[in-house]
Amino acid sequence: MKQVAAIIGGGVIGGGWAARFALMGWEVRVFDPDPEAQRKIGAVMENATRTLPMLYENPMPTPGGISYHGSVADAVAGAVWVQESVPEKSGLKLQVFKEIQDICDVDAVLASSTSGFKPSELQAGAARPGQIVVAHPFNPVYLLPLVELVPGPAAAPETIDRAKAILTRIGMYPLHVRAEIDAHIADRFLEAVWREALWLVKDGLATTEEIDNAIRYGFGLRWAQMGLFETYRVAGGEAGMRHFMAQFGPCLSWPWTRLTDVPDFTPALVDLIAEQSDAQSGQSTIRELERLRDNNLVAILRALKGQEAAAGRLILDHDAGLRRPLGDGVPLVAVRRTVPVDWADVNGHMNEGRYGQVFSDASEALMAHVGADRAYIDAGMSYFTAETNMKYLAETLVGESFYVETRVMFGEGKKLRLWHEMKRADGTLLATCDQFLLHVSLETRRSCAPLPEVAEAVERLAAVHRESAHAKKETDHG
Amino acid sequence: MKQVAAIIGGGVIGGGWAARFALMGWEVRVFDPDPEAQRKIGAVMENATRTLPMLYENPMPTPGGISYHGSVADAVAGAVWVQESVPEKSGLKLQVFKEIQDICDVDAVLASSTSGFKPSELQAGAARPGQIVVAHPFNPVYLLPLVELVPGPAAAPETIDRAKAILTRIGMYPLHVRAEIDAHIADRFLEAVWREALWLVKDGLATTEEIDNAIRYGFGLRWAQMGLFETYRVAGGEAGMRHFMAQFGPCLSWPWTRLTDVPDFTPALVDLIAEQSDAQSGQSTIRELERLRDNNLVAILRALKGQEAAAGRLILDHDAGLRRPLGDGVPLVAVRRTVPVDWADVNGHMNEGRYGQVFSDASEALMAHVGADRAYIDAGMSYFTAETNMKYLAETLVGESFYVETRVMFGEGKKLRLWHEMKRADGTLLATCDQFLLHVSLETRRSCAPLPEVAEAVERLAAVHRESAHAKKETDHG
Repeated sequence: MKQVAAIIGGGVIGGGWAARFALMGWEVRVFDPDPEAQRKIGAVMENATRTLPMLYENPMPTPGGISYHGSVADAVAGAVWVQESVPEKSGLKLQVFKEIQDICDVDAVLASSTSGFKPSELQAGAARPGQIVVAHPFNPVYLLPLVELVPGPAAAPETIDRAKAILTRIGMYPLHVRAEIDAHIADRFLEAVWREALWLVKDGLATTEEIDNAIRYGFGLRWAQMGLFETYRVAGGEAGMRHFMAQFGPCLSWPWTRLTDVPDFTPALVDLIAEQSDAQSGQSTIRELERLRDNNLVAILRALKGQEAAAGRLILDHDAGLRRPLGDGVPLVAVRRTVPVDWADVNGHMNEGRYGQVFSDASEALMAHVGADRAYIDAGMSYFTAETNMKYLAETLVGESFYVETRVMFGEGKKLRLWHEMKRADGTLLATCDQFLLHVSLETRRSCAPLPEVAEAVERLAAVHRESAHAKKETDHG
Repeated sequence: MKQVAAIIGGGVIGGGWAARFALMGWEVRVFDPDPEAQRKIGAVMENATRTLPMLYENPMPTPGGISYHGSVADAVAGAVWVQESVPEKSGLKLQVFKEIQDICDVDAVLASSTSGFKPSELQAGAARPGQIVVAHPFNPVYLLPLVELVPGPAAAPETIDRAKAILTRIGMYPLHVRAEIDAHIADRFLEAVWREALWLVKDGLATTEEIDNAIRYGFGLRWAQMGLFETYRVAGGEAGMRHFMAQFGPCLSWPWTRLTDVPDFTPALVDLIAEQSDAQSGQSTIRELERLRDNNLVAILRALKGQEAAAGRLILDHDAGLRRPLGDGVPLVAVRRTVPVDWADVNGHMNEGRYGQVFSDASEALMAHVGADRAYIDAGMSYFTAETNMKYLAETLVGESFYVETRVMFGEGKKLRLWHEMKRADGTLLATCDQFLLHVSLETRRSCAPLPEVAEAVERLAAVHRESAHAKKETDHG
């Protein structure tokens, strides 16, 4: 049976939580008095359904359903995780947590999305403060891995451990904030930058677009992968961190920033920023900007995944946990996935090169299945593709789900021949690949015989698959 | 003849400028009294030579040479661009600009990499203040496009225009900072965040690694593509920017940040940060971290390029400017490029799928050559690949340069058959591809005849290429 997550309060953040839990296979129960909640969460869910699976090469769990409930009690009953994302008002939050604790399991994790309150403020006066934590996510919750987990003084160690395990399981990175402080960690940086940006706009020194360009064409690209300190460590050059600090530390006392002041948040300033933002981005709707943002995030996260670095490393690890054995089916289903945004070409469909990658992935899965896995490769042997013949039979579009059926047609000594059929989720044949591989030593880069257990596994499969291919051929022609 | 850039002051920043200019085809002349300058710039040049070409699908200009000179005068003579990156000391900078202006062309752009001085401070008392600007880049200069161009009060309009044109030509984005202010724009944000980060470490609230994770797993991913304001515009949801401001504006006056203070930069704080940084990243050398950073930047920038977004859009435009007509050679050289880091697979060489992409790129170049270019595609017609037969004859490694020779073997009506040979820069045959394409209507997604001018161009090529292929075959077998 699916585990249950209760989402108290929809909106952009609550909707993001709902989408992530549902797509990771949880049953989601929502309470939100807003009559528009279902429509709003539906829109978030649509964005998330399109993009989150693109981060993974392995098939995701069967999504859980999202149901809407008329009361906190109804949504919370039986939930393992309760996520509160109601407006940032102290009395309201305390009231909601009271209602939750009146009914929820004593083992459930009760987490608040708040950035404005510390956990101690939510735990104070609670029936069971030990099960309450802050789990502060970042928008879009369904794509960004960061969640600040702030247990505060009262959360029980079991609650913290359970929270970390669950957040990791749904593909997030729980950053354990060890001491509770106002705004946790990340928002302190965001506030500092936001304040400085307001000054620059207010004083007419830069427009919103100029500021965005100053960030995204420069240090934003560094921060996406290394953050602040590691970037500076590298910038210090061969002399390292101490050198960097010696060189730049003193700048701190220079009169560079207006941050010692807080700009007045006047209607005129709001108008100025809203007008500049319209001039910068007004040609696109928010939905269009959301798609653009999500496509870019998928592409960046996949790029980092390819480098096994930063947030990409997190997704790689999570993805590995989704891998399932290929089983004994004939043919083997070697790949099952969706087409990510970075696979499209100028014709608006999956680029032909990506078919080669799909079939390469299929052969890699087959290799792992016969024992020529990552460890085997690390030990110095692998199969290299020598020749492929591919037929592209139907277009494959971004976001489509497909699978690859793989047969071993021949496997003797160092020679391996595979037959792949790539099919849309509905069974339509999209492409075929006749692939000939050679077993090689990664040391000499020359062909050589596989280890006996791999050779035997290949021969065993070849015997069964060849037979089924013949049977299939007769059926096709029959 | 190549244009000349003079680099006054090497180090990480000066070296980055030298590398970017040289790789963009400029002759670079360096003056730096440091006896280690040549070695240090050589190391930067090595990083840049490996990665900058990876951002482009088109061949880059032939690199210019880097020469080292014993005086400012010697380096500056004949230079179109002079970049000053000496230590941030007022007297030194003024002296250097005096020496430059004693000898330089009156039309040369004299640019300072300074973040600590405003242009007016460098222009004051100069012989020709109109040719001096600040051009503040970001490390690594050879990969990050941002450069803050601050003309200050005295720079001549021609200088500003010339500076923008040259910076754009070497692949950078000149952000025109209209009013001179301390630290320009981006460094004000960096300072604000750096200061807050120092407080968090000093007070024991977070380690350097926790802070880096808070950035790179969360908002760093947003800022790499949209910056601050556009991100918040989207976060405001359907109600947009005004709603976001109404909701979050008031937080500004909350007591969230320690930014009103400046932490004392004591030896104890330096030790604490250096130790935490060692624990976080000390297992890698700076050179290793530089490679990691650069690989990640290449991957992120290429990901954004694939989405035609943010900094990737800049590179796409720059790349388009590098494209040259294929000419009349037989065979056509349809692709000439290096293997970027994101094309590697678990075997440590170029993944077989990328061969498909290379040949797809070659056929796209061929299509453009016969008039089936982007405009033709936008007008509703294109060629789709129906079948490929690829032979993988030798491994291709990341960073290697290669080219593709393409022949039209058959071209009649809607049918097009190409023969591609992919060769390492030294002529070694790496792979071949026999590719069969069909001309299609993008509206009906069905095959149809090409427009007459495209059909004729294809037939013309087929006649010439087939003949040469026959001649080649005879030679091969002779």
